Amino acid sequence: MPRTRSAPPSPLGPVRPTPDARTALRPAAVTVDAGFWHDRRATNARVSLPQGPDLLESAGNLHNLRLAAGTAEGTFQGAYPFVDTDVYKWLEAASWQLGAAVGEVGEVGEPLAAEVDRIIALVAAAQQPDGYLNTWFQLVKGGERYQDLRWGHELYCAGHLIQAAVAHHRSTGRTELLDVARKFADHIDSVFGLPGSGRPVDGIDGHPEVETALVELYRETGERRYLDLAGYFVDRHGHGLLDGDAYSQDRVPLRAATNVEGHAVRQLYLLAGAADLAVENGDAELRSAGERLWHAMTTTKTHLTGGLGAHHDREDFGDPYELPNERAYCETCAAIASVQWSWRMALLTGEARYSDLIERTLYNGFLAGVSLDGERWLYVNPLQVRDGHTDTGGDQSARRTRWFRCACCPPNVMRLLASLQHYLASSDEQGLQIHQFVTGTYATDRVRVRAETDYPWHGTIAFTVEETPSDGPWTLSLRIPEWCREFRVRCGEETYESPVDDGWLRLSRTWTPGDLVVLELALEPRLTAADPRVDAVRGCVAIERGPLVHCLEQVDHPGGGLDDIVLDPSRPLAVKHRPDLLGGVTTVVAAGRRRRIPDRGWWPYAPATGAESEPDGEPVELTAIPYHVWANREDGSMRVWLPTS
Amino acid sequence: MPRTRSAPPSPLGPVRPTPDARTALRPAAVTVDAGFWHDRRATNARVSLPQGPDLLESAGNLHNLRLAAGTAEGTFQGAYPFVDTDVYKWLEAASWQLGAAVGEVGEVGEPLAAEVDRIIALVAAAQQPDGYLNTWFQLVKGGERYQDLRWGHELYCAGHLIQAAVAHHRSTGRTELLDVARKFADHIDSVFGLPGSGRPVDGIDGHPEVETALVELYRETGERRYLDLAGYFVDRHGHGLLDGDAYSQDRVPLRAATNVEGHAVRQLYLLAGAADLAVENGDAELRSAGERLWHAMTTTKTHLTGGLGAHHDREDFGDPYELPNERAYCETCAAIASVQWSWRMALLTGEARYSDLIERTLYNGFLAGVSLDGERWLYVNPLQVRDGHTDTGGDQSARRTRWFRCACCPPNVMRLLASLQHYLASSDEQGLQIHQFVTGTYATDRVRVRAETDYPWHGTIAFTVEETPSDGPWTLSLRIPEWCREFRVRCGEETYESPVDDGWLRLSRTWTPGDLVVLELALEPRLTAADPRVDAVRGCVAIERGPLVHCLEQVDHPGGGLDDIVLDPSRPLAVKHRPDLLGGVTTVVAAGRRRRIPDRGWWPYAPATGAESEPDGEPVELTAIPYHVWANREDGSMRVWLPTS
Repeated sequence: MPRTRSAPPSPLGPVRPTPDARTALRPAAVTVDAGFWHDRRATNARVSLPQGPDLLESAGNLHNLRLAAGTAEGTFQGAYPFVDTDVYKWLEAASWQLGAAVGEVGEVGEPLAAEVDRIIALVAAAQQPDGYLNTWFQLVKGGERYQDLRWGHELYCAGHLIQAAVAHHRSTGRTELLDVARKFADHIDSVFGLPGSGRPVDGIDGHPEVETALVELYRETGERRYLDLAGYFVDRHGHGLLDGDAYSQDRVPLRAATNVEGHAVRQLYLLAGAADLAVENGDAELRSAGERLWHAMTTTKTHLTGGLGAHHDREDFGDPYELPNERAYCETCAAIASVQWSWRMALLTGEARYSDLIERTLYNGFLAGVSLDGERWLYVNPLQVRDGHTDTGGDQSARRTRWFRCACCPPNVMRLLASLQHYLASSDEQGLQIHQFVTGTYATDRVRVRAETDYPWHGTIAFTVEETPSDGPWTLSLRIPEWCREFRVRCGEETYESPVDDGWLRLSRTWTPGDLVVLELALEPRLTAADPRVDAVRGCVAIERGPLVHCLEQVDHPGGGLDDIVLDPSRPLAVKHRPDLLGGVTTVVAAGRRRRIPDRGWWPYAPATGAESEPDGEPVELTAIPYHVWANREDGSMRVWLPTS
Repeated sequence: MPRTRSAPPSPLGPVRPTPDARTALRPAAVTVDAGFWHDRRATNARVSLPQGPDLLESAGNLHNLRLAAGTAEGTFQGAYPFVDTDVYKWLEAASWQLGAAVGEVGEVGEPLAAEVDRIIALVAAAQQPDGYLNTWFQLVKGGERYQDLRWGHELYCAGHLIQAAVAHHRSTGRTELLDVARKFADHIDSVFGLPGSGRPVDGIDGHPEVETALVELYRETGERRYLDLAGYFVDRHGHGLLDGDAYSQDRVPLRAATNVEGHAVRQLYLLAGAADLAVENGDAELRSAGERLWHAMTTTKTHLTGGLGAHHDREDFGDPYELPNERAYCETCAAIASVQWSWRMALLTGEARYSDLIERTLYNGFLAGVSLDGERWLYVNPLQVRDGHTDTGGDQSARRTRWFRCACCPPNVMRLLASLQHYLASSDEQGLQIHQFVTGTYATDRVRVRAETDYPWHGTIAFTVEETPSDGPWTLSLRIPEWCREFRVRCGEETYESPVDDGWLRLSRTWTPGDLVVLELALEPRLTAADPRVDAVRGCVAIERGPLVHCLEQVDHPGGGLDDIVLDPSRPLAVKHRPDLLGGVTTVVAAGRRRRIPDRGWWPYAPATGAESEPDGEPVELTAIPYHVWANREDGSMRVWLPTS
């Protein structure tokens, strides 16, 4: 492909760097038309998304908009000041869905478009003449705008409105919602600024989100002041405007921070905004902060599933290596925010590791958040449910729930699934980079590659070059996943098996339509151990296969609980495809024992004898299902990490 | 001692069963006049207690009482509806202190008595004419009495008022506070009752406490209806009056419960009340429930320190064997409540194991709650503070705090220390039982025994019979602690070393004044392991010596953190008395290594090789201090459980 100074156009999805952006990569257009993610996206489009309006109606979110518009009577419904965002995230999800390529899951477009129009009209009617829009403050806290930035979520709500508007405009070209969002953004821009700027309020929102949204609004409208406003918000965090509260991302400026901290989703949304700024402004210090914090997060604060957030209390990150299993918080929204941030970092830097984490998160910590039928959700995603677990229900239940009091996660899942094709591939002047493996078509403005695969169940991905310029070489780059210890690529007559240092296998040549590249990733099941500082899993292993973390569920192991099971690491793991199970999954079968635990009387602690580590007891065959399908059958215990002694 | 049908009188402390009570044992009078607990009680009497009124003044608690009495102007101060209990618990503590025997720590009596009088007058003036008393409801929620029983804490506050009044009356014989408490209790008795009883409200308080208080009020006044009211409250829990909320002890009736659950302090106070009822009513079903739940709690939900409560979120018990280290909640109040419940069970059943848990709790999970200087407190008592810990301050900080927003723990510590001598020994028709070892005098109405010991630093306790009837035998029973694997008792010419099945070594004979009994408990330091289902400490041991759990603190291990340290269990432990350290403690010195952890790049999980368990790295001498003195020097990391590989 001939070198050109102008960047290729980005596809119509989230994160669309401007032509001047300092970004290593730009998103490439992908059409997913079969296979694993197609099926999950189809359930999202056919079940989850269409149910949204009814759920938003019954939870009162739409009622609040009508109240604010003066077209209904009653009182504000909902427990939180940010309930408007459930509507906005659903609108964003539906808008990305409307923009999906024909042949993907486009058949739901017609009725969905009508619902989108109806709900956008409700939003527009609720907006105040000066652009302000927040039903909680309009209905409950009249006249107290911007006085409780720590808890009020006004800018957070604005951020999700803006993201929905950008999605609607990018997907449909229509401006009804974009007009609402711009009017609100202009209002915010007239209110917030540094002391001396002439703006009345120097402040930040306790829940970041508006930052990344404003960068996207800048990208969509070309209005530079939205980008500047985003920069103002990012850099005002950490200066004590919110009492220096770590939870609200105000303890330390990002540029000086050494690890992620505080409320996980807040931290990750803020980092996504910072990455956007680094892309658009070429801000090397913000880029460096993002790289540093991403490394600290992955090395010390990330669960095996990609889940983030160790504390139920305050939904916070824990201390380094504090990664509990049963109390892993791993909010579904944090997994989504992690994908959004990592994708921005992947584009910014061109490095494959960011997409390694995205793959792990998508297949595990994220996807567990929605049931196979698309109708029930998990807000928290623990790595263990104990024998004898007493579930107290509520949003943080370890049992799937139809909707939440704080319903942030379901529409967030919907918007990521509806826009997932935009997180899979990229392009640069050298060519096309395949970040994630799906059946479908990957394209830039110059080249098109078709892929067929049964990934993640099988490790073979066959790429066929469909369109290519004939006048020179370009590079097809395949991400070799971090988990992969053995692979082979056949490309014409050549075979590549060599390790890749930076995660990319780069195939550079002058291509001809019909050229075939076959990537075979060895999917041997494996036992995984953690850094020894992760105290919670000392003496344990996890079963993994390809990108999938596996787990045991009680229902597959009758005759006892899971907490007395010991895995025998010396015995081979077997793979068993189970088309009958959970919509068709590949399980891993391992050998274990049900430990005989001597009665210690009333006190469970006794002098250490070393005999604690002797496995003993009745042999039991362990069936490990993929973590992302857990909690789709009867309630019971579950474990990812299994003791070996 | 001749057998007699009438029970000996109980000393003037908490838990004073009536003569008709069905109790195996009754509290015996103990005077603690030197040694470990005397010193801690002296700090309590000379530092902590005298500072109470100023702290209650600056936090606004006394101001609220004046407001309610109409003798001051302003608004309610404090963040919680139960701030009155801080005053009541301080009054209870001060009252027990006033009742302390001369020679103990009695010299503080004069100024303390004046403060008690002053504050009782404030309480009395705040009471409403019909007996109701709660400054939050009187000042903030006027007219909404008993309408928010789940969160209002009105009966919880009444319970602490009653306990303070009982303490004041028992210690001083004066009735100023008892009159206030009776008037409130009569009011409550006129309001609460079963449907059809003619009382307007069928309800329970979300926070139990009034139950055990009402039994004590019955004991002090002889009014049977207080006992009946306590019985009503205990048995109405678990019937959905508070939406079936486990946190509020309403998911299941105690009589049907199979394990402790919900908010730990609420559960334990309720169980204390149930034990009181079993004692006074001879209620075998309640006794059986207490025994069952105590066993379930100790086997599955108790930390090594005796600490209780695994969740920061909602201050709840966790699931069985869910016993995290860094996130152990182990509220100081829960340790106190555990001592109170276990002591009632010890008296009810006569079984030594209850006092085993009391000993462990007093020396570890409880005592860590107050600093050596008596001026700083811990609300939560974790078993680990990680390297790189970011403390967010607040009540749940891992750093000691001068006072809390929710200041429940400090005055609770004060009341237990001020009344501690009443939890140490008992009597029955056979004689005297020594539950805990102190320097001082143990007495019933017929016998007196003097003890001298440097326990827990040394294992020798010398008992001298000072008074004894000359007309027959009686039994001196010594509790041989659960942790003790080797002991010797010399009694005249005889020596006993045999194991004791039920925890009691019983010495029955006709005693002569001057008879000497020397108990020697072997205090070899030991490594302790946990039931393998306690996932959080797999592959770890704890260092213990006698009743003391030990821990490592960062300050004693310069040159690195604690989270990469591995203990070598094959090397001997050494004992080192350190009069210079932390007011004089005995440390245990162990051999370990600072593990060399290979750089795994950005992802801390990798294929299991078995090499994870190979200890390696620089040798380091480990200094383990008693857990109860941690956090008295500079901030840093801390560990109780240490990996061995």
